[in-house]
Amino acid sequence: MTSLPLTPRVDGRADDELRPVTITRNWLDHAAGSVLIEFGRTKVLCAASASTGVPRWRKGSGLGWVTAEYAMLPASTNTRSDRESVKGRIGGRTHEISRLIGRSLRAVIDYQALGENTIQLDCDVLQADGGTRTAAITGAYIALADACAHLGVPKALTGSVAAISVGIIDGAPRLDLPYVEDVRAETDMNVVMTGDGKFVEVQGTAEGAAFDRAELDALLALAEKGCADLTRRQLEALA
Amino acid sequence: MTSLPLTPRVDGRADDELRPVTITRNWLDHAAGSVLIEFGRTKVLCAASASTGVPRWRKGSGLGWVTAEYAMLPASTNTRSDRESVKGRIGGRTHEISRLIGRSLRAVIDYQALGENTIQLDCDVLQADGGTRTAAITGAYIALADACAHLGVPKALTGSVAAISVGIIDGAPRLDLPYVEDVRAETDMNVVMTGDGKFVEVQGTAEGAAFDRAELDALLALAEKGCADLTRRQLEALA
Amino acid sequence: MTSLPLTPRVDGRADDELRPVTITRNWLDHAAGSVLIEFGRTKVLCAASASTGVPRWRKGSGLGWVTAEYAMLPASTNTRSDRESVKGRIGGRTHEISRLIGRSLRAVIDYQALGENTIQLDCDVLQADGGTRTAAITGAYIALADACAHLGVPKALTGSVAAISVGIIDGAPRLDLPYVEDVRAETDMNVVMTGDGKFVEVQGTAEGAAFDRAELDALLALAEKGCADLTRRQLEALA
Amino acid sequence: MTSLPLTPRVDGRADDELRPVTITRNWLDHAAGSVLIEFGRTKVLCAASASTGVPRWRKGSGLGWVTAEYAMLPASTNTRSDRESVKGRIGGRTHEISRLIGRSLRAVIDYQALGENTIQLDCDVLQADGGTRTAAITGAYIALADACAHLGVPKALTGSVAAISVGIIDGAPRLDLPYVEDVRAETDMNVVMTGDGKFVEVQGTAEGAAFDRAELDALLALAEKGCADLTRRQLEALA
Amino acid sequence: MTSLPLTPRVDGRADDELRPVTITRNWLDHAAGSVLIEFGRTKVLCAASASTGVPRWRKGSGLGWVTAEYAMLPASTNTRSDRESVKGRIGGRTHEISRLIGRSLRAVIDYQALGENTIQLDCDVLQADGGTRTAAITGAYIALADACAHLGVPKALTGSVAAISVGIIDGAPRLDLPYVEDVRAETDMNVVMTGDGKFVEVQGTAEGAAFDRAELDALLALAEKGCADLTRRQLEALA
Amino acid sequence: MTSLPLTPRVDGRADDELRPVTITRNWLDHAAGSVLIEFGRTKVLCAASASTGVPRWRKGSGLGWVTAEYAMLPASTNTRSDRESVKGRIGGRTHEISRLIGRSLRAVIDYQALGENTIQLDCDVLQADGGTRTAAITGAYIALADACAHLGVPKALTGSVAAISVGIIDGAPRLDLPYVEDVRAETDMNVVMTGDGKFVEVQGTAEGAAFDRAELDALLALAEKGCADLTRRQLEALA
Repeated sequence: MTSLPLTPRVDGRADDELRPVTITRNWLDHAAGSVLIEFGRTKVLCAASASTGVPRWRKGSGLGWVTAEYAMLPASTNTRSDRESVKGRIGGRTHEISRLIGRSLRAVIDYQALGENTIQLDCDVLQADGGTRTAAITGAYIALADACAHLGVPKALTGSVAAISVGIIDGAPRLDLPYVEDVRAETDMNVVMTGDGKFVEVQGTAEGAAFDRAELDALLALAEKGCADLTRRQLEALA
Repeated sequence: MTSLPLTPRVDGRADDELRPVTITRNWLDHAAGSVLIEFGRTKVLCAASASTGVPRWRKGSGLGWVTAEYAMLPASTNTRSDRESVKGRIGGRTHEISRLIGRSLRAVIDYQALGENTIQLDCDVLQADGGTRTAAITGAYIALADACAHLGVPKALTGSVAAISVGIIDGAPRLDLPYVEDVRAETDMNVVMTGDGKFVEVQGTAEGAAFDRAELDALLALAEKGCADLTRRQLEALA
Repeated sequence: MTSLPLTPRVDGRADDELRPVTITRNWLDHAAGSVLIEFGRTKVLCAASASTGVPRWRKGSGLGWVTAEYAMLPASTNTRSDRESVKGRIGGRTHEISRLIGRSLRAVIDYQALGENTIQLDCDVLQADGGTRTAAITGAYIALADACAHLGVPKALTGSVAAISVGIIDGAPRLDLPYVEDVRAETDMNVVMTGDGKFVEVQGTAEGAAFDRAELDALLALAEKGCADLTRRQLEALA
Repeated sequence: MTSLPLTPRVDGRADDELRPVTITRNWLDHAAGSVLIEFGRTKVLCAASASTGVPRWRKGSGLGWVTAEYAMLPASTNTRSDRESVKGRIGGRTHEISRLIGRSLRAVIDYQALGENTIQLDCDVLQADGGTRTAAITGAYIALADACAHLGVPKALTGSVAAISVGIIDGAPRLDLPYVEDVRAETDMNVVMTGDGKFVEVQGTAEGAAFDRAELDALLALAEKGCADLTRRQLEALA
Repeated sequence: MTSLPLTPRVDGRADDELRPVTITRNWLDHAAGSVLIEFGRTKVLCAASASTGVPRWRKGSGLGWVTAEYAMLPASTNTRSDRESVKGRIGGRTHEISRLIGRSLRAVIDYQALGENTIQLDCDVLQADGGTRTAAITGAYIALADACAHLGVPKALTGSVAAISVGIIDGAPRLDLPYVEDVRAETDMNVVMTGDGKFVEVQGTAEGAAFDRAELDALLALAEKGCADLTRRQLEALA
Repeated sequence: MTSLPLTPRVDGRADDELRPVTITRNWLDHAAGSVLIEFGRTKVLCAASASTGVPRWRKGSGLGWVTAEYAMLPASTNTRSDRESVKGRIGGRTHEISRLIGRSLRAVIDYQALGENTIQLDCDVLQADGGTRTAAITGAYIALADACAHLGVPKALTGSVAAISVGIIDGAPRLDLPYVEDVRAETDMNVVMTGDGKFVEVQGTAEGAAFDRAELDALLALAEKGCADLTRRQLEALA
């Protein structure tokens, strides 16, 4: 990790500080659980739909299922992006993030306790300013908790899960990157952790130059702090 | 029109009364214009994206273009509906409403004054409780007005446009139908009008029995009142 | 309605006069009902396929189903249009008209009397010169009547249905617009009516300027006359 | 070739006799050439659309292009078949026949004489009773000839082309198979020939048992006779 | 057939000589049968997957099913071709060849002896240098034979099947065309034959000029020789 | 990390030992670079196609581009999987791995030195037994190196890249998981490293239980050893 004179962050935050987090629970009337979560200007609407029954390949197993879909509204980005329904196909990035959210939430689910029920999470980005996937996971957990309660199976949740992005910008490891930092990051990492401090997903990518073990360790430490902060915010929201 | 003993409306409204209308302008940070519009529990996010240039078939004409896309989030309805991007094709209803919104807004656009610019309206239903297409048109007009101002061509707007649903329920003509009334309507009509009281679209459908001329006239009168009310709300929001 | 010096119609018709209507019943050998219907140069082949059973969502209800698909052959238009099967997706206009035809025909169907049978109408435009959707509805009704007879349930038909286009050209309300008038129409309306003079669908669109209530009334009167004329032609064809 | 007691043909024809052939030229008003061709109950509408310019890969070559698309209307078959535009993809059989028609017609085109023009043939089966691809080729040739004349390049045609099906049914080689014979054929062959008796395409398929050289020779002889008969009918139609 | 001074073949072969044929049986570990077959530089991986059960339309018949899919890897050709999965649709040529391979193999299958089992052949072209479909058929037969043995129904095979391409280049009929000859061929024919010398498929196409009966006979004779040679190679491989 | 009595590996390897690695360079004749790489029974064909020019969004920049596509042949897996070209859409897993391979290779590319050329990597899994994505990256690097040499820009490569999977099975961290271990892994991680020991991608997923920091460190150490071994094998192959 080179030691450049550090440039301050565009929004004046400390390197290990989250953007303001806002969690509005029950933003929708119909869904079994719903949250409008904001990480700074990033706004993601997370909705959990609960239904009895499971996909065909799981029938008769006594086990439940949790799955997720992620999408961005066309006007959520700086420059309007085409609607995937109009293009007739879902892009690689959308697929990848949907799969990540689903895996992350399933890490804290006891399928047996859930019983043969399905919870479908929809994470729709209404406004994007970096960190949409991590906001989606963090918010979806709350919608999932409400959906488990709604189904009468609160014990199907074995823990909590939250996610945050970290990256190296101008040589400095930083927490919770907004879009302007994200595009300049040399290394970008998304980390999903449980409320008791274990890792569910670690996805680090060298955007510019490959990173060494010391840099990796610094990023993991930042992510541990960020996820712990988010876990507290989730507990408050669910209180 | 049969004269049944009238059942009161589920929300206690008079037959010619709108649901509470809420218009939150500039709900997004990036878009040239944006509105979160609510007709009762129906919530539609309308965003206008402005770009220089026009579609290929219009290049060099000196004329602008306005187009629209409508979509519903999966969890917006009582029972979750599949995502059209996942199905890989857009349904007939979505196409039909997108086309309706685009036509309605183009009715108040002076292409010459707009110049070779394109304004794309995205109307995404976050929560659906009847009247999503009329809320979308009414809200999109405001986002369109802001986008014209943003482009420096406020004169591209030649008037205002608003829309409302009307229908016959248990023999009674009623204004602004929520979902529970919509599904029971014998006749359902969506009317789009300009601020000066002319018709842009009249789409009446006999869901149950065909309707006679007297019923048609009663519905048109209700719609005229509803659109006039909405026009006032639009003016207030833009003031 | 402005009072311009009226230009005569290109084919010399009176403003309230239909183009020559030709109905050739049983144009196909296999279908339960089939009609080649011509409104002037517009030619639509309407075929009704009858099958026992209904779509899954209707099984066990004792009720039948009627649905329709509309399409244009590539060479039916002045300039060849691409085949939707080749493009891999159905356009918005096709969807919209297919849905309109289906709704219009279902307005005269008694599902109970039809029993758990399905009638599928296919309306394929072989040559297009304006009014293809109204010719399709008018012709499809006859194919539907033959299919009901073929299924042994003539009473499943509760009435007849016909459709015509009207519009304002150079300020004059006119009946049954050919393509050259259609593209110049300031206002364009398609009206579907039952044989006993009630409305099933009213779809009016301001193509150029919004229209006032007097213009709307004039168009509705023209449509009432046109549909009554078509109802007579349908009765003759079915005699 | 086994020598079974021969069953007479269902329509009383001789084994080497064509079904009644009807050719209605200029069935459409817009197309550069159009033909409604009937082989017995098989009805195919062939339309040729002419346009200046060629596909991108051929630009600047001075050479023209001819291509074809084949499709069946849903109600053309005994049991309604789903619309390929609705399925969102074109089936293997449709592709295969479209390619065959295009190749067959290109065999009699002088691209140099055609100049940088494109002729697109659309062959839409309105009613199917066996032999749709051979009727399509035979009819499309006439539409093509009219389109060449329409473009002012009659010399772009270097000859004529016609096609017929042959097959072995109950051990007997037969010409021009209707559907009931086609499904029972042990061997099925489609042969495309020029007006001067040369082969353009020979496509023989053993549906049941493989065929020997003597059977192949018998089928080729029948096809030669059939194509010669069709060539005469084409000349009469174009006279 | 014109009598030009014959140019020698690019690889020095006699006109009636096959390219070197290499057959590597059991190239894969999982499949019920698999072959890497090479005709010169053309390499096709043929895999047979066996499964109990048949497609829905065949259930309860007591009969089995055999089907095939053909595809080319993007880098198999001289110039990389786009992946059909990325384009989202299968091209006409791919469909046509898949259907040809399936039909060819079904010609030597006794469905009764196969029982309600399905064998799926996948023929993936790893490197293309002409003759990919004939190599695929020839190799797939061996994989099919191994799959029948694997299923315990060796008698489901009623014979063997092989395929070869022939064509006329510079007036000379030639066997087993590599790419450089294929593109120059005036006439191109693919012939599929059983081990006992009967025809399963004859697909001859005039690429340049139509061909006469004498030329057709010469090509058939060459194909008979080529298929007989390949039949010997198949027997050796299966010994 | 729990300390269970360790079960030996199914193939007798030590926990930090790679499966036998086979690299066959220039397996294809046409491609600018090609490798058949085998990790045990996993076989991936990696081909690099080089072309002048870059995608539109990069034109005129003086910079090159490298991209990758990954796919599995249907018969590569134990149970045949459907072809994505037939399904008409690419699955999420395929997208995700294609993007991973592309990013990994771009980490060792100097776009300036590459100039406005594009190298497209195709990684097709011929047989799958775990670790297909890591074999693909490791093999694709060699094909990429050959393609750079082929283009005359060997300096476009700034280093080498290799990848390996690691995981925790029955509490024991293990290197290079075959399918039977992969499905039982509690935690699964794919690590991409440069030849000089830096990280390009770290993708760890808790399949069963979340993992703690000590486990993460053990897995990273194993991956460092595995990638170093593969780097040696790459150097030998390119020598």
